[in-house]
Amino acid sequence: MKTSTQAEFKPNFRYLRLADEIENKIMEGVYKAGEKLSSIRKLHDQTGFSITTVYQAYIELEKRGVVEPREKSGYYVKPLLRQILTSPEMKKPLAVPRKVTIDSMAYSIVEAMSDPAMLQLGGTSVVPDLLPYKQLFRPVKTISNSNLKDIITKYENPAGNYQLRRQLAKRSLGYIQNSTVDEIVITNGCIEAVSLCLQAVANTGDTIVVESPTYPWFLQIIEDLNMFALEVATDPISGIELESLRKALEKNDVRACIFVPNFHNPLGYVMPESKKIELVNLLNNRNIPVIEDDIHGDLHFGKTRPVPLKAFDKKGLVLYCSSFSKTLSPGLRVGWAMPGVFLEKVKRFKLNSSIASPTMNQFIISEFLKNGHYDRHLRRLRTALKNQVRNMALAIARYFPKNTKITAPEGGLILWVQLDEKLDGVEIYEEARKRKIAIMPGFLCSGSKSYKNFIRISCGNPWSEEIEEGIITLAKIINGLL
Amino acid sequence: MKTSTQAEFKPNFRYLRLADEIENKIMEGVYKAGEKLSSIRKLHDQTGFSITTVYQAYIELEKRGVVEPREKSGYYVKPLLRQILTSPEMKKPLAVPRKVTIDSMAYSIVEAMSDPAMLQLGGTSVVPDLLPYKQLFRPVKTISNSNLKDIITKYENPAGNYQLRRQLAKRSLGYIQNSTVDEIVITNGCIEAVSLCLQAVANTGDTIVVESPTYPWFLQIIEDLNMFALEVATDPISGIELESLRKALEKNDVRACIFVPNFHNPLGYVMPESKKIELVNLLNNRNIPVIEDDIHGDLHFGKTRPVPLKAFDKKGLVLYCSSFSKTLSPGLRVGWAMPGVFLEKVKRFKLNSSIASPTMNQFIISEFLKNGHYDRHLRRLRTALKNQVRNMALAIARYFPKNTKITAPEGGLILWVQLDEKLDGVEIYEEARKRKIAIMPGFLCSGSKSYKNFIRISCGNPWSEEIEEGIITLAKIINGLL
Repeated sequence: MKTSTQAEFKPNFRYLRLADEIENKIMEGVYKAGEKLSSIRKLHDQTGFSITTVYQAYIELEKRGVVEPREKSGYYVKPLLRQILTSPEMKKPLAVPRKVTIDSMAYSIVEAMSDPAMLQLGGTSVVPDLLPYKQLFRPVKTISNSNLKDIITKYENPAGNYQLRRQLAKRSLGYIQNSTVDEIVITNGCIEAVSLCLQAVANTGDTIVVESPTYPWFLQIIEDLNMFALEVATDPISGIELESLRKALEKNDVRACIFVPNFHNPLGYVMPESKKIELVNLLNNRNIPVIEDDIHGDLHFGKTRPVPLKAFDKKGLVLYCSSFSKTLSPGLRVGWAMPGVFLEKVKRFKLNSSIASPTMNQFIISEFLKNGHYDRHLRRLRTALKNQVRNMALAIARYFPKNTKITAPEGGLILWVQLDEKLDGVEIYEEARKRKIAIMPGFLCSGSKSYKNFIRISCGNPWSEEIEEGIITLAKIINGLL
Repeated sequence: MKTSTQAEFKPNFRYLRLADEIENKIMEGVYKAGEKLSSIRKLHDQTGFSITTVYQAYIELEKRGVVEPREKSGYYVKPLLRQILTSPEMKKPLAVPRKVTIDSMAYSIVEAMSDPAMLQLGGTSVVPDLLPYKQLFRPVKTISNSNLKDIITKYENPAGNYQLRRQLAKRSLGYIQNSTVDEIVITNGCIEAVSLCLQAVANTGDTIVVESPTYPWFLQIIEDLNMFALEVATDPISGIELESLRKALEKNDVRACIFVPNFHNPLGYVMPESKKIELVNLLNNRNIPVIEDDIHGDLHFGKTRPVPLKAFDKKGLVLYCSSFSKTLSPGLRVGWAMPGVFLEKVKRFKLNSSIASPTMNQFIISEFLKNGHYDRHLRRLRTALKNQVRNMALAIARYFPKNTKITAPEGGLILWVQLDEKLDGVEIYEEARKRKIAIMPGFLCSGSKSYKNFIRISCGNPWSEEIEEGIITLAKIINGLL
């Protein structure tokens, strides 16, 4: 990854540099899972760093979920996510545009996935205690009357609050070089951004390429707009298969694509940078717009934030979409789009469909960014999610049948689990629901009803005995159905 | 109007009853414009009410904008809106469904109508000082941490906050008898409600009946959804012409209607109750859904709130839409739909297009309603708007050319002004814009570009010398162009 595109700058503490160095060596395979690391004293002798610095580095690595202490024995390397289980196999979908019809079951699954009475392994929300809701709210408590008057009694600019757009333009500097305040349109969450962008680039009857599997919501938007979804094969490590995409573009009149190149939902991969460049060039050359959902982009487990496709776009054909629903607040509904050459159309659709997003919510996020709280918060959140995802994967490896396969996400909070071919994710979903556990059956991630024997497990909750119990219950259900 | 449908119950003070009685007599024409009312002492002798009561009644009538005091002479009846100028003539539009194409000018007009640097006679916002922004905000300042946590860290129910829906169901009791919490879907303002409802009842290529003239936003939504608008002739006093509608329905395959029966925008009329019943029966019999925009329904100048079409719907085919953008806050973006039998479809479109509306905003409105502030606020707001509309109409009558015609709205804040046939509203708009005055040219209210010599004037601002200057400037522009 290019350092020029690094989004985050850490303070230059020695223990952090040491921790980075050790983590890199673990990632490169220099230290293997289960291996004991040098003792503190030995590393002190070896490196010249003080005892305190070495100790702090190990504590930091423990926080990052990379090493674990064993009593009276020292620090050991934890298994890397990638080594826990093999990756799922992806289906090669038939390259035929499909009229999507999500059955009525989808709505009841969505309800289950947001039911607080259930153990949530279904919805992709982060647990409330990991979100800085009191800090977010602080500027509201001390708001001036004149500010309040503006916020309540006026329509916001249809493109969004200027201060918030300025903060967003500043933030994206690290990874989208040409972003400007004027190209940003604030939306009610990422979904509205994607929906407005899709309306801007395509019409009824048009064919839209999506990854297979894909985020179910995209299929529902495509269905609502009476378009066709064309699913293209995806590699679980590197993302959409360019050769399959090329063929699909040759055989079909494709109007646009919707891709999630960073921490794909449900696969969790980051598309390698060289592949991103190749993908954007391929689509730029054919003048095909691509809607990029980067909602999990800030939730990287590695050191640097991956760059989006948008960074390599030469023609303004990448419509970038994101939101703060996974990182700060789902309830505030603040997302945004950077729609490239489709800016005016997206602004128009936003204006016509709801005039503008509410001002208060944009003010809250804008102040949080302005006060510099976001990066600090993200560091804490990323470490928590990394641990949650790893612990969930370990538990699945431990309790599920031996032929289970699982993704190794490099960010985000989702695991994609492949089960025995005889199994049906919907049956597992229904049995789990009876026991107050919400999961997502994999078939929702495709209009072709592939992925019957897949389930999606989300890891928004801190690891707990209750979750372990939930995984054990799921394992029992699976074994019972086999 | 039936008393059973009265939405507002006033305290039973004697002076108010006396004021009501006098106002009724003025409305009925018992007292004419300019006529002197009985002196306080004489009315005291005549009615047996105390001097104080009679005095309070006259003050109340003055507040309501019905009478005016003249120094050392007593109280005089002010001219009724309906008597100021004759009503505009309506065009009989060609009964052909039209592909709407609002030109790019529309966006710049919308920008001018929300530009705070201009004298706003264009946008239909109420001036900030008439909105209770501090009172709205009070519950936010004292919010509990656990409440805050829910508001910030969770997705709201896609149908909307339960407490707010409960308040809305309670409020609509007076004028929509069968409203239930479960039929309500909270939206980002009335426009989103109308847009979601239209998507629920019609598809690309379908024909939608609208009033002529109509609210420009409806035409834009119809255009965005690639539907056709069929404009039907409207009487400026009683609303859509049923005979023209019947013919239009016979000749065309009409999929749905969008109507504003209460305080029509731009015409300001209330459709009489008997006509509402006839209209709903006509559409019910043909199974044609009607989207009803009731956004100005609470802003009646008369004593009772007019009932909506929804009250007479027997088949669940009226999709009721409204919002608090004109009465409490445009910036909070809280509206709602009661979509009858289309409920599940509207909920689905809401879910898929933005998951849910933000919780914070719904909480603010819900608390305001719960604490009983809304009716008190509305009384003050209605009186202010009534005065503003009357004063604007009087000024137009005084300064504009003699052949000007003008509507006599019974609520809301809009005047529709017909000018000499030689004039072009767009030219007036452009000249006015140069002088920092925003108005809306009438051509936007029709896809057929009728109403070339019409302009819409909105009365959201309290009467002031600045506004009078603005009207004088407009009159000069008009005389210059003649």
